Amino acid sequence: MTKDPLVVFTPSGKRGHFPVGTPILTAARQLGVDLDSVCGGRGICSKCQITPSYGEFSKHGVTVADNALSEWNAVEERYDSKRGLPKGRRLGCQATVQGDVVIDVPPESQVHKQVVRKRAEARDIIMNPTVKLYYVEVVEPDMHEPSGDLERLREGLKAQWDIDVPKADPHVLTHLQQALRKGAWKVTVAVHQGHSDSVPSIMQVWPGYYEGSIYGLAVDLGSTTIAAHLCDLQSGEVVASSGLMNPQIRFGEDLMSRVSYSMMNAGGAAEMTAAVRDGMNALFTQIASEAEIDRALIMDAVFVCNPVMHHLFLGIDPFELGQAPFALATSDALRLEARDLELNLHPSARVYLLPCIAGHVGADAAAVALSEAPDKSEDLVLVVDVGTNAEILLGNKSKVLACSSPTGPAFEGAQITSGQRAAPGAIERVEINPITKEPRFRVIGSDLWSDEDGFEDAIATTGITGICGSGIIEAIAEMRIAGIVDASGLIGSTEQVGTPRCISDGRTHSYMMWDGSAKGGPTITVTNPDIRAIQMAKAALYSGARLLMDKFDVATVDRVVLAGAFGAHISPKHAMVLGMIPDCAIEKVTSAGNAAGTGARIALLNSKAREEIEATVRRIIKIETAVEPRFQEHFVNASAIPNSAEPFPILATVVTLPDVSFNTGGEAGGDGGRRRRRRG
Amino acid sequence: MTKDPLVVFTPSGKRGHFPVGTPILTAARQLGVDLDSVCGGRGICSKCQITPSYGEFSKHGVTVADNALSEWNAVEERYDSKRGLPKGRRLGCQATVQGDVVIDVPPESQVHKQVVRKRAEARDIIMNPTVKLYYVEVVEPDMHEPSGDLERLREGLKAQWDIDVPKADPHVLTHLQQALRKGAWKVTVAVHQGHSDSVPSIMQVWPGYYEGSIYGLAVDLGSTTIAAHLCDLQSGEVVASSGLMNPQIRFGEDLMSRVSYSMMNAGGAAEMTAAVRDGMNALFTQIASEAEIDRALIMDAVFVCNPVMHHLFLGIDPFELGQAPFALATSDALRLEARDLELNLHPSARVYLLPCIAGHVGADAAAVALSEAPDKSEDLVLVVDVGTNAEILLGNKSKVLACSSPTGPAFEGAQITSGQRAAPGAIERVEINPITKEPRFRVIGSDLWSDEDGFEDAIATTGITGICGSGIIEAIAEMRIAGIVDASGLIGSTEQVGTPRCISDGRTHSYMMWDGSAKGGPTITVTNPDIRAIQMAKAALYSGARLLMDKFDVATVDRVVLAGAFGAHISPKHAMVLGMIPDCAIEKVTSAGNAAGTGARIALLNSKAREEIEATVRRIIKIETAVEPRFQEHFVNASAIPNSAEPFPILATVVTLPDVSFNTGGEAGGDGGRRRRRRG
Repeated sequence: MTKDPLVVFTPSGKRGHFPVGTPILTAARQLGVDLDSVCGGRGICSKCQITPSYGEFSKHGVTVADNALSEWNAVEERYDSKRGLPKGRRLGCQATVQGDVVIDVPPESQVHKQVVRKRAEARDIIMNPTVKLYYVEVVEPDMHEPSGDLERLREGLKAQWDIDVPKADPHVLTHLQQALRKGAWKVTVAVHQGHSDSVPSIMQVWPGYYEGSIYGLAVDLGSTTIAAHLCDLQSGEVVASSGLMNPQIRFGEDLMSRVSYSMMNAGGAAEMTAAVRDGMNALFTQIASEAEIDRALIMDAVFVCNPVMHHLFLGIDPFELGQAPFALATSDALRLEARDLELNLHPSARVYLLPCIAGHVGADAAAVALSEAPDKSEDLVLVVDVGTNAEILLGNKSKVLACSSPTGPAFEGAQITSGQRAAPGAIERVEINPITKEPRFRVIGSDLWSDEDGFEDAIATTGITGICGSGIIEAIAEMRIAGIVDASGLIGSTEQVGTPRCISDGRTHSYMMWDGSAKGGPTITVTNPDIRAIQMAKAALYSGARLLMDKFDVATVDRVVLAGAFGAHISPKHAMVLGMIPDCAIEKVTSAGNAAGTGARIALLNSKAREEIEATVRRIIKIETAVEPRFQEHFVNASAIPNSAEPFPILATVVTLPDVSFNTGGEAGGDGGRRRRRRG
Repeated sequence: MTKDPLVVFTPSGKRGHFPVGTPILTAARQLGVDLDSVCGGRGICSKCQITPSYGEFSKHGVTVADNALSEWNAVEERYDSKRGLPKGRRLGCQATVQGDVVIDVPPESQVHKQVVRKRAEARDIIMNPTVKLYYVEVVEPDMHEPSGDLERLREGLKAQWDIDVPKADPHVLTHLQQALRKGAWKVTVAVHQGHSDSVPSIMQVWPGYYEGSIYGLAVDLGSTTIAAHLCDLQSGEVVASSGLMNPQIRFGEDLMSRVSYSMMNAGGAAEMTAAVRDGMNALFTQIASEAEIDRALIMDAVFVCNPVMHHLFLGIDPFELGQAPFALATSDALRLEARDLELNLHPSARVYLLPCIAGHVGADAAAVALSEAPDKSEDLVLVVDVGTNAEILLGNKSKVLACSSPTGPAFEGAQITSGQRAAPGAIERVEINPITKEPRFRVIGSDLWSDEDGFEDAIATTGITGICGSGIIEAIAEMRIAGIVDASGLIGSTEQVGTPRCISDGRTHSYMMWDGSAKGGPTITVTNPDIRAIQMAKAALYSGARLLMDKFDVATVDRVVLAGAFGAHISPKHAMVLGMIPDCAIEKVTSAGNAAGTGARIALLNSKAREEIEATVRRIIKIETAVEPRFQEHFVNASAIPNSAEPFPILATVVTLPDVSFNTGGEAGGDGGRRRRRRG
């Protein structure tokens, strides 16, 4: 007796013998090979495309003959003529085994396909969305065996897909009967897979085979901006991205001013809740229109945000978050419906909010933890999400610590004399010649430095309008390297520094970066109050990180990840010169971009990742900086540039910071001199 | 070593030895005695009241000394002075064991207390509502161990009540923090127990111990009227009952005319859905106001209705129910939220719809099955819910069959010349002297017969306005007994019958019941078309029952239960003379009142009963009368009074029906003569 033909699947390497005539899809299912199908092998959906390989495969011990698969059949012909099957591809549900064969499952034919992330060090996202499509044939009603159409649909799902779907969302009942009859008892259903706190449920029924897509939203709800990615829930692709200013800004720029607003105004919290929900709905309309899809096809949405936004979005007065012990109304992840939050998406769209880590460390920090996975890191990683509030994670495989630190809005260009948002015309890169003390810079909108040919033409339309957050950091760091600013943060006088760019402005000095007054443009200076503002901000950030290092009982970290839109633009060297981040090899400081947004996208596309981050957050050790006595000490030390107590030896191998002091006793700059002495 | 004291609980008989000082509540819990407590033994709720018995109990082998329980303590003193403890009662959580003791748990102290039903043969309702109250002490927040207030509340429920409540309804988050702080970290929570398709969830949080009640609604949504009972979910007591006309009546009196309305008018189904939901909300406002409670305290609602109302209430176009195969959109029981149906109750009030049995046999029939429990009957019972559509159940412990039969509105007084709804002034009871052919009757609003002294005074205010459904049945049956109507349904002439009350009205005759014309009142007659209408209605009802008997393979039933408001008023003897119901001992024909409404109330108060009826409905064998060939034959036979084919031998022992025939060949009354011959 000859053995049944051998079928080998790549890349999984799974193999087995199957009788002649077995469809490849059947063989794949029996072996547990990850081969997609929405129509259940009826040759409609084409999700099960496979590529047979022919010839000698010594690795697999197989020779594949030209007739190893059945002939191209009528279903494949029809599909190919209507929509085109890529060369070499077959439909796995139509092609049957005729002899030993090697079958490659291309990435797009996998159910749990990977969505590739751009950054080299980032893990890819495994597709496993909470809503999936199934094509089902339903038994027609029989008045002698009366049962509801829904009940027979559920039986079909059980028989044809082996899934128990105990219920349908209420609105499904209103379109179910028409869809079944229009589709001649064949329908495509969207099923929400449920969770430990809910059962699987039918969310939508389309007549026949539904050829469209279904969508999900990953939303990063920031204090200042709301950013959303619209993703295809089948391919994982981002089909549109959009953002808007948080409409709550009119109630206060930063979080604490919004908390105050709710305390001072009856109904203030409800007003802010309405504002952010209205803003969301406007954003969703906008993003759906950009992607040219019906907003009602958005069936899932994931939100990440800080605790105050989290509470206001949920309709909870954030009062308790404004005072110790900073009690969250709820800290666990939330699985809701869009209607609970008055969001106009699919009528029973689901919503997921990542868990909050603590009263000051929100779901956004949890999303960063999901994206950057410090809990999976072999080396000790410090992850800093820089914003008006900095969320800080420190950890490795053994444990992860978290805290937040109120940096204020200086890093976003606010409270800075010439500060502005990162927009065309803003100075974003700065270099200062340490000998001549002359600056050169680049502005957003041009790749040329200000001393390069063609710079003036390149910026003709935008002009030079101010300094953005990354620009001010580079400017101050370069001033420190060039000896224009001392360790205490004092700018020297023309005499002390030796450049007319240092201008007296009363009791302190400013450094003239650009004088546009001749052409009617602005004068762009860095003033001593600007430096004070950045010192406060960076000291808050550093001391948070340093506190976690104390708690971890380490003096150094192996690498630093800067997250957040701002973090993406910071020059690691300059951040370190300022003493924003701990001393570390500069090449070990990387940017993760909008890690919170990425975390939201991972949670949207992979429901397993939700459970993972929930478990991770439970294990994260929370540190409340406000009540840690050492925080204050670290803060005082970190007020110096880079630090009055810590040596930064790795930084010292890259740049030498001049040991200058401009304290003549006349400025309120504090104990810069004492600090400098201590360092000496 | 002496043994610990013995504690014997009555009526359960459970007993055990407990150390001196054990609170009675603790002993009860350890023995699994059903003793209620909301506050968890803190002496606040007084639900755990018990009655100790003293003296010699030979039955239990115990002598109870006067000091068998601890002294009356301060908590009991305070409770008694504030609210009064009934004589002999103690608080089970305060009184401790000091010696052997016999403890009686009064009915109102049981968790699963019984709600007594008035009818002797009806089973009592066991209290086990889906929403229960728990008093919880919550750990205060700690910024060093940050966790949400909700999460600590859930931990309290687990630790103090041993229940896992994985989530809270979204709106709870908006009042949770305030309630916890106002109650100094002690709150009362309402918990929905969940089901196989949902998890337990916190529905409401009150600061401190909540002394109020929570409520549920049992609603019978009929084609013509909507009736609701408001029940206390802790005591089971009906605190208010109310009803209104179904506002859908403007779209059609009967169900099929409403189905037609939706077919003929675009948006007609949605219009009817809005009408019934608006009506519901009006009714709920009314009933809450009658009971003087806040409508937002209504946390659960159970609805029973026929399939067309079921679909319209759910927002489903009833189109498919108007044509074979009469496919229901869904047949299983539904667990929804009130907001799914736009009902204004508690913000996350739950809604339960009983399962439908078949396309023509709805959740109302399922509710009748729950109330009358034919599946638990030792003898063979026929349950008939009489309305514009009759639902019929036949069965016993071995099996239950169900069908429906379209009786039309004649039984409700519609389509009857002098017919009217059952209201003051309507003739409801009739007797006709078989010798003189003179009638006497009673009208609604008076207990006097029309030939008794004082009758005219008694009816002075209401007058005599018409005949209601039960009145017309008695009138026709009495006319048949008195020989005024023959078996074919023809009224004889004055000459044939021998009374001037038989008046010719063209080709047929009428019987003059009451001539009020002298006093300007109406003339109340029974016409031959009236008799035809009742013949059609009762034939439909009887042939449905007879068909089930065929399917059960029986010729007789042991007992008959008449359900529905109308069923409650029918005289069994007269119904049997008419041949509405099968021949049966008259004392075996009972009325169940509004059994559908009672079924709704059982399902409201006892969640186990929901699972029970769902299982029962799955086992019920459904018969579709429309396509059963024998239905037609039974219908033709049942058109005669009582029946042209069936002998009614038990009836014959009670009344002798004169063998008259008034068919002179001139009337379209059909084959009355042939039928009579066949019976002869």
